[in-house]
Amino acid sequence: MKILDIARDRVSIRNYKSSIKPPLSDVLYCLETANESPSGLNCQPWYFIIISSKDVKVKIRRLCESKEKEFHNKISRYFKDWLDERGITWRKPFLEYAPYLIIVLGNIKCPYFVQSTWLSIGYLLLACEEKGLSTLTYTPPNTYELSEVLDVPKGFKIEAIIPVGFKSEDRNKEPRIPLREKIFIDKWGMHMNLEK
Amino acid sequence: MKILDIARDRVSIRNYKSSIKPPLSDVLYCLETANESPSGLNCQPWYFIIISSKDVKVKIRRLCESKEKEFHNKISRYFKDWLDERGITWRKPFLEYAPYLIIVLGNIKCPYFVQSTWLSIGYLLLACEEKGLSTLTYTPPNTYELSEVLDVPKGFKIEAIIPVGFKSEDRNKEPRIPLREKIFIDKWGMHMNLEK
Repeated sequence: MKILDIARDRVSIRNYKSSIKPPLSDVLYCLETANESPSGLNCQPWYFIIISSKDVKVKIRRLCESKEKEFHNKISRYFKDWLDERGITWRKPFLEYAPYLIIVLGNIKCPYFVQSTWLSIGYLLLACEEKGLSTLTYTPPNTYELSEVLDVPKGFKIEAIIPVGFKSEDRNKEPRIPLREKIFIDKWGMHMNLEK
Repeated sequence: MKILDIARDRVSIRNYKSSIKPPLSDVLYCLETANESPSGLNCQPWYFIIISSKDVKVKIRRLCESKEKEFHNKISRYFKDWLDERGITWRKPFLEYAPYLIIVLGNIKCPYFVQSTWLSIGYLLLACEEKGLSTLTYTPPNTYELSEVLDVPKGFKIEAIIPVGFKSEDRNKEPRIPLREKIFIDKWGMHMNLEK
């Protein structure tokens, strides 16, 4: 299957079949792929904690939801409407019910650690989709408290939580702005004459 | 071909065949793939300028090299040695000789624009490798001057320059830290008993 098709097929998923655990070997395949990505100075800032324990997932959910609740009380009307349309609230059940959560961390001493870590997340998402595993890139609002619960030492920052599993919902992909509006030739503003 | 194999095969390349231009349709395929990546609030912060003009490439090279020269005069011994071992100097001939440069920009108003843009770069690199196109993720030191030359409006930040083309060198992949040292289970420090 072509990578473009895999990229097109991938949809962010918030509801997972909690009772069916994908093979751990598939999850490791995806992390192995992420581990191959390039990085500034080849520093390889990424680290991954695979959360499989129900207890830990419940703790993570509780911590995140309490901060999300504060956050949702403060956001603008526009943002709130956008979230409402998509059924996104302060509730994050996927943190408890996805069979696996992958906590992605970056070593803050590495040059361009944020950039490199997210590049590796790009690799990770495509590999998951190839294996038939659904994902979401959730950026937790309270990385400090989460780090305490997970024993993360100073110098490593939680960049994302990626739930991984089989989806229990059908969701349309968010529409993409057409490529012709996203690319220019030789300088900003010069649109291309795409022949097709 | 499996995505893991594509990820493994990809090596950062600094020397390109300047006389052979890959089909533009292949470059567009890779950008189409990048355009499918997820983003914070689906804001799709990424924009791409494809540089094909020799004149513009020469200008970009000149601007970057002048800043690189200053930078290389200031860096630590350790860093200098690391670069020397790899033959990396202030000279950036790939900015002139790669058949295409892709300038990747992010809309700074989008939430998590850096993270989302680099995730899309992950998609882009894998698609290029799939098409047999070599790449490098070069982070230019002087995005302000470059933005002026390329007529980039305020509010959009140059995140990377990706040369794209056929390689004219064979280079070993930088070694990766084994995955078992990069992953933990349920909390930091808990290594997995990988069966194989």
